[in-house]
Amino acid sequence: MTSASPEGAIGVFDSGIGGLTVVRELMNLLPDEDIIYLGDTARVPYGIRSKETVRRYAVENTSFLLKQEIKMIVVACNTVSAVGIDAVKEVAPVSVVGVLEPGARAAVKATVNKRVGVIGTEATISSSAYQRAIKAIDSTVDVRTKACPLFVPLVEEGWLDGKVVEAIAGRYLEELRESGIDTLVLGCTHYPLLKGTISKVMGDGVRLIDSAVETAKVVKEQLEMEGKLRKHGNLSGRRIYFVTDSPDRFKRIGTWFLGQEIEEIEKVEIGDYRG
Amino acid sequence: MTSASPEGAIGVFDSGIGGLTVVRELMNLLPDEDIIYLGDTARVPYGIRSKETVRRYAVENTSFLLKQEIKMIVVACNTVSAVGIDAVKEVAPVSVVGVLEPGARAAVKATVNKRVGVIGTEATISSSAYQRAIKAIDSTVDVRTKACPLFVPLVEEGWLDGKVVEAIAGRYLEELRESGIDTLVLGCTHYPLLKGTISKVMGDGVRLIDSAVETAKVVKEQLEMEGKLRKHGNLSGRRIYFVTDSPDRFKRIGTWFLGQEIEEIEKVEIGDYRG
Repeated sequence: MTSASPEGAIGVFDSGIGGLTVVRELMNLLPDEDIIYLGDTARVPYGIRSKETVRRYAVENTSFLLKQEIKMIVVACNTVSAVGIDAVKEVAPVSVVGVLEPGARAAVKATVNKRVGVIGTEATISSSAYQRAIKAIDSTVDVRTKACPLFVPLVEEGWLDGKVVEAIAGRYLEELRESGIDTLVLGCTHYPLLKGTISKVMGDGVRLIDSAVETAKVVKEQLEMEGKLRKHGNLSGRRIYFVTDSPDRFKRIGTWFLGQEIEEIEKVEIGDYRG
Repeated sequence: MTSASPEGAIGVFDSGIGGLTVVRELMNLLPDEDIIYLGDTARVPYGIRSKETVRRYAVENTSFLLKQEIKMIVVACNTVSAVGIDAVKEVAPVSVVGVLEPGARAAVKATVNKRVGVIGTEATISSSAYQRAIKAIDSTVDVRTKACPLFVPLVEEGWLDGKVVEAIAGRYLEELRESGIDTLVLGCTHYPLLKGTISKVMGDGVRLIDSAVETAKVVKEQLEMEGKLRKHGNLSGRRIYFVTDSPDRFKRIGTWFLGQEIEEIEKVEIGDYRG
């Protein structure tokens, strides 16, 4: 039951908690909007799974959101944006915005020396989706990538800075730092929480692109274009969270991502929605 | 289709790759035996999930193994052994051996000063299952525990030693080291691959208990007792691996765990077996 009016909610899904960094930016930029979030916490993480499995999960999540009154779907997961956004678009009768394109576009705009780095999960990096997206905008940009599989568990453990975290980041980012990039795309929704450490390791000369920030901007543009932007001005959007595993861990860790408490939350089963 | 004769296979399941450390010890101790392994790689890791979800997954995995010709089930996953082994036993008409009891028993036997440490995933540690198991054997043993959530992704990333790994282990193990334990249970099937680092951090005075080694001993005893031990003597047991996601990553990383190549492997769907 999708919605063609501005009164519908923005449906957002992610493999788990990470997408909350996108929700945070959506709330900042579009405080009037209702947001319905689905975190597939029973099957997180997607970043280590095969393309086929990620696509199946993405379609199942989309089917769940389409049963709510939504006017748009935001794929707040880089892995799905990289390997499965076409599958989501195929089944969704509303606009679909991923986190990859906005990040790629911002990186091309930001780079001066035309050397861009991208970091993300195994699945995102091995898909080469960022490379393709950046090259499609400007084929002269040199793109260097690196998978950083430990960053997600690090963030979920709450280890965001300090010597150990810097040592881990240093090991992952060494090559990128030496390659002379001037722009680095944080190609995973967890990574904004490591911004401080990543910035310290990369140095002042490297500009970090936060996909969550860029995605929120694109969502606003798209809603405006479709005439679906809410203009109440009372800043009272409602946020409802659905998860596929127990809400406890999501609530606890999610608070760091969101920067505020998670109130309305419910556990749902989505395994039946076979794509 | 279970088997009452020695010709049946040993059915082993785990959330993913970790249980291969148990398979490795089973192959060492019982080279004649056929082993059928199920790694639920589409839903790994279990260690961050709720008890209810872990139990449902465990029953689904058990149902899959029970369709093979098996004479025993080994739950090669500490999380399931901690929170769901009763659910497995309820549905299985064959003996069920977990990895928790053998480790607990070995720790009580090994400790001299009656101070035992246990490390594992969030789910295993928060269940207090090791504490209960150790106290049930000897109530005078003082048990200290610590969840080390980064150890699993560290191992799967192939970071087994070196300064960064030691720093991470040092941060997790500091309190346990200072608590004066003389025995430490590696309460997660991934941890034996970090033995060198953990041992270095803990020092020579602390004995490490490898649940995989202890579990293999208990499997042998149990099969002997039931008259189901194979005695071919030709050391030619067959090993078949099933996974629920693409076999590529499992084959690649599994080789480190197993110490040899994984040959017979097949992807299966198990989501339909709702417990």
